[in-house]
Amino acid sequence: MIVVMSTNASTQDISEVIARIRSMGYDVHLSEGKERTIIGVIGRGRPIDREQLGLMSGVQNVMPVSHPYKIASREFHPDDTLIPLNGIKVGSPDLAIIAGPCAVENRTQIIEMAHAVREAGATALRGGAFKPRTSPYSFQGLGVEGLELLAEARAAAGLPFTTEVVSPGDVELVARYADILQVGARNSQNFALLQEVGQTNKPVLLKRGMMSTMEELLMSAEYILSHGNYHLMLCERGIRTFETYTRNTLDLSAVPALKQLSHLPIIVDPSHATGNWEYVPALAMAAIAAGADGLLVEVHPHPEMALSDGMQSLRPDRFVEMMGRLRAVAEAVDRTL
Amino acid sequence: MIVVMSTNASTQDISEVIARIRSMGYDVHLSEGKERTIIGVIGRGRPIDREQLGLMSGVQNVMPVSHPYKIASREFHPDDTLIPLNGIKVGSPDLAIIAGPCAVENRTQIIEMAHAVREAGATALRGGAFKPRTSPYSFQGLGVEGLELLAEARAAAGLPFTTEVVSPGDVELVARYADILQVGARNSQNFALLQEVGQTNKPVLLKRGMMSTMEELLMSAEYILSHGNYHLMLCERGIRTFETYTRNTLDLSAVPALKQLSHLPIIVDPSHATGNWEYVPALAMAAIAAGADGLLVEVHPHPEMALSDGMQSLRPDRFVEMMGRLRAVAEAVDRTL
Amino acid sequence: MIVVMSTNASTQDISEVIARIRSMGYDVHLSEGKERTIIGVIGRGRPIDREQLGLMSGVQNVMPVSHPYKIASREFHPDDTLIPLNGIKVGSPDLAIIAGPCAVENRTQIIEMAHAVREAGATALRGGAFKPRTSPYSFQGLGVEGLELLAEARAAAGLPFTTEVVSPGDVELVARYADILQVGARNSQNFALLQEVGQTNKPVLLKRGMMSTMEELLMSAEYILSHGNYHLMLCERGIRTFETYTRNTLDLSAVPALKQLSHLPIIVDPSHATGNWEYVPALAMAAIAAGADGLLVEVHPHPEMALSDGMQSLRPDRFVEMMGRLRAVAEAVDRTL
Amino acid sequence: MIVVMSTNASTQDISEVIARIRSMGYDVHLSEGKERTIIGVIGRGRPIDREQLGLMSGVQNVMPVSHPYKIASREFHPDDTLIPLNGIKVGSPDLAIIAGPCAVENRTQIIEMAHAVREAGATALRGGAFKPRTSPYSFQGLGVEGLELLAEARAAAGLPFTTEVVSPGDVELVARYADILQVGARNSQNFALLQEVGQTNKPVLLKRGMMSTMEELLMSAEYILSHGNYHLMLCERGIRTFETYTRNTLDLSAVPALKQLSHLPIIVDPSHATGNWEYVPALAMAAIAAGADGLLVEVHPHPEMALSDGMQSLRPDRFVEMMGRLRAVAEAVDRTL
Repeated sequence: MIVVMSTNASTQDISEVIARIRSMGYDVHLSEGKERTIIGVIGRGRPIDREQLGLMSGVQNVMPVSHPYKIASREFHPDDTLIPLNGIKVGSPDLAIIAGPCAVENRTQIIEMAHAVREAGATALRGGAFKPRTSPYSFQGLGVEGLELLAEARAAAGLPFTTEVVSPGDVELVARYADILQVGARNSQNFALLQEVGQTNKPVLLKRGMMSTMEELLMSAEYILSHGNYHLMLCERGIRTFETYTRNTLDLSAVPALKQLSHLPIIVDPSHATGNWEYVPALAMAAIAAGADGLLVEVHPHPEMALSDGMQSLRPDRFVEMMGRLRAVAEAVDRTL
Repeated sequence: MIVVMSTNASTQDISEVIARIRSMGYDVHLSEGKERTIIGVIGRGRPIDREQLGLMSGVQNVMPVSHPYKIASREFHPDDTLIPLNGIKVGSPDLAIIAGPCAVENRTQIIEMAHAVREAGATALRGGAFKPRTSPYSFQGLGVEGLELLAEARAAAGLPFTTEVVSPGDVELVARYADILQVGARNSQNFALLQEVGQTNKPVLLKRGMMSTMEELLMSAEYILSHGNYHLMLCERGIRTFETYTRNTLDLSAVPALKQLSHLPIIVDPSHATGNWEYVPALAMAAIAAGADGLLVEVHPHPEMALSDGMQSLRPDRFVEMMGRLRAVAEAVDRTL
Repeated sequence: MIVVMSTNASTQDISEVIARIRSMGYDVHLSEGKERTIIGVIGRGRPIDREQLGLMSGVQNVMPVSHPYKIASREFHPDDTLIPLNGIKVGSPDLAIIAGPCAVENRTQIIEMAHAVREAGATALRGGAFKPRTSPYSFQGLGVEGLELLAEARAAAGLPFTTEVVSPGDVELVARYADILQVGARNSQNFALLQEVGQTNKPVLLKRGMMSTMEELLMSAEYILSHGNYHLMLCERGIRTFETYTRNTLDLSAVPALKQLSHLPIIVDPSHATGNWEYVPALAMAAIAAGADGLLVEVHPHPEMALSDGMQSLRPDRFVEMMGRLRAVAEAVDRTL
Repeated sequence: MIVVMSTNASTQDISEVIARIRSMGYDVHLSEGKERTIIGVIGRGRPIDREQLGLMSGVQNVMPVSHPYKIASREFHPDDTLIPLNGIKVGSPDLAIIAGPCAVENRTQIIEMAHAVREAGATALRGGAFKPRTSPYSFQGLGVEGLELLAEARAAAGLPFTTEVVSPGDVELVARYADILQVGARNSQNFALLQEVGQTNKPVLLKRGMMSTMEELLMSAEYILSHGNYHLMLCERGIRTFETYTRNTLDLSAVPALKQLSHLPIIVDPSHATGNWEYVPALAMAAIAAGADGLLVEVHPHPEMALSDGMQSLRPDRFVEMMGRLRAVAEAVDRTL
């Protein structure tokens, strides 16, 4: 950390800042220029609050020189984290394709979809049982019944499944059924929930909040990791911007950036990002070309009858066609599908 | 709702859309132009999913003509909602000033602050016991001990208090202590939490998420209202934008807009919005001039020692000075403080 | 400037960075910690390109410690800049109210409006002759004829006027007529235009781009100032955010922030910011309470017939009413209107 | 266009709206429901101002049912527009790779780069002679000398070049030298400039403003097209969002969306979007996979010595490597490079 003193800081101001830093267990390096003094904080002491230092008399600015996350960082863990899933390792050249309907609606729908996506080559099934909906009047999911149906579909098609958990109190329940616990975009900074999934030993798929920076996503990851659960995948699903023609703006720059900053696998969700099935194949291919480790894609047998997110769901035949095109792109970037 | 058919929709497309709308219990009005047909949905039937209609063959666009929230709307409840608080009614010309430290740190701090803000004219005390922090390594609040200390401060200074609740499982506990339940910006779309506070009879202060539109804020309000709790105040606390010089961008246009759209009182939090105590008085005055029903302001005895958010906290003497200036502005806009 | 070397920078990397900095005419201060070396750049040399340094081997980050603008900064010119306008000084406690239609449409309209706003207490008239419109098919303004009509209105009502200039080639022409040259939001980073208005001696009203940070606005101001024109007013008119209920998001935090960073007067335009006349009075009062030096407000005799921006224009009677309420707020914050 | 009347609109309100619409040369279709009346505007009349209608008594909302751009739309011109460039047709399966330094700095640099990018397979050279820089103190480009050097480099390497024009007064000059006129992001809504380039017969590369929606980009395109110049390419180069880790957020969803809405070719600029050369290859591949018709990429012989944008420039050896990987992706999506 570097403390930049203002040009009119007094000698006493500087002494007090140095004393405060030393009292936290650090050493300091002074750089006294003609215009201003700069104080470098050296060593390892107790956590220093930037804001506290920033408010001391004579301080102009306090600048961090390292990331606020540790376990999530590439420095801490230089090798890629690999998550076993249905015979592949997510984070290796094998690509993970997680596909299925937005919400579980009934037995026929979810079992039909499980078979359809497995036959098209998907690695896992997705389906929501607890749905966080903007409106209290929208379909809120089948709850426990949805989990039961997902378990049936898993048995029928032989595919593991991911499903969202929306409340700390439900984590134990959902973990009894699901193969992957999904934390949704609106809960990306629900710290009580992050702590709870961090205490399970189930793989977690953590979605980036639509208002979260990459650094905040990695801080949310840190909550899970620091509670002991290292089976973690990040998911880019679009951020909110001024552009409203698409539902959100898919931030594919996050793929190479997060791969550089962190060792965790990155999954991309083009369905929620665009909100429009017509743009999903183009962005799915782009995500793989950018280096993503997998995709989360919505597929529904009858999108025009879907109880949620029909607009962004592919029909099974279009999903099959997309998988074919994805294989060509995957091969071009040395990934396998 | 209006369904705009595309220019090349077939007669059969149009018939099928009409049949679907009628099957939901509505009537239709057809407007057949040379270029396209437009179908108006009339009457009251079961909720129609816009996306489902939008995916039917020949449909170009489906446009709502009314708001998605009901109980929160001014149409539903034309009179201002008034919330009793420490002898005043929030939402009336009386202004509510809720002030205190970001977090409860110890007995001395919170009791000293309770006295200080009461003497300066505050209506209620604020203080966090459960803190949602971006970093798992930051101070997370004193928890139950913090609630106990807030209760002591209330008794000592005679001020009701608001404190944040971050998990559905904590709502009952926090409601036993607090006078107002605060739902923070990061939990503005934590629907499980909203449902839970909607089932208490405690007043709720619902903060706008930093990436929530006004409509989404009103939909979150609808979650609480539709579960039976009508003692609800909205809080504008800044939205996230590209401008990073201030911590967030305070959206004061939301004050007249929300007053027009809804009957609920609006509180403004200039401390979190700017992240800088130097700008708090100017924006506090602006909020009152814009028509806000009250303020949420951070005050700390020693901001440079604060365990959280010191940078945006006013010292008690500056809070006293600000209250004097606020009184003049309040009078100019026919409000009382 | 501070250069943070990465933890694995070599001795040679450090030497080369130091040599580069010295070659630009600066001295360095070294802070060698156990983990990393930090190099402070001291003194005054030739401009250093942060990106160039940032790309040298072993460099992790290059952080500026001062603002990139000079003449616009409060440090350079501690006293408030005052701009004489129609008998008052903009930037002093006197408030400047600049009001009139979005566009000059015909002689009757502009002369009627000039009289109306002067009688209501306005300081100057506004009216567009050259209109930057998103659509090539929208009304583009009357051009030179509009300037002639504005000059007639000035003579008739005795009010100076501001009007927008949209092209470097038009600056001389517009400056022959106008009392204040307005640079619009879409031209806030039209550097060719900024240089041109910087070479006149006419007061300039520089609008913040809807995508400009405060720092970028001050850099645009620096273009004008560094070309010799010091008669400059800044104008906050709303920034583009994800919220679309209002046309833009008025950033009133920019008022205290810009007053602290710069000596230039700040005008606020609530009409363009909200795009809705119903919210204009609330935000006009808020702007004055926040410390703005004046307002730019759209007034039109028949908003429903306006050729542009009718939705955000006040009728003259509503403008008169707003002026009355503004006077009370102005008095409460020790300003005169 | 559809006019939604409010629930309490009077019969007279409705008659007046109908009369106004008819006076503009349109017919109307009435849809009278129990709650409200909806008026459809039918036929082709004079342009109707939505805001004017929206302000009439009893009107709640006015909704467009078609796009505001015409010549730029896919409806107007169903086939892809093809732009001949150095033996290929931009917009066909042939990909256009336009590469070179941000700014022309001297003869050696630009000629060396022209040879380097041509040998690596580039279609055209890029290089700035007039540079729009945020700071008046930054390098502003070599101006006419830069154009001369670009012309020399063209002759030497046999590559056409694109260069930015920043002022309407410079269009004729730049058009005498350049093969493609580039309109930069900060000038994306500089309508005076758009009109001027629309009057030349040179191909234009129009960059999306960092705060422009896709619709606004197409409206800017419409300015150029409606002035008679149909040789137009659009360029996605990142939009401004709350995420600051990358310089802007590359919006690759714009590629399939713009291809659907418009017939114009789309070029992607991953260099400006990310501001970081390390992420350029991943996003270049993603752009091609998403369906872009070409790339604009910054290449500099010595990025750490570049007078502008060094941080985002690839060294020639890295450009060569990227081109190899691009060829594989291009083939996977049936494009040729």
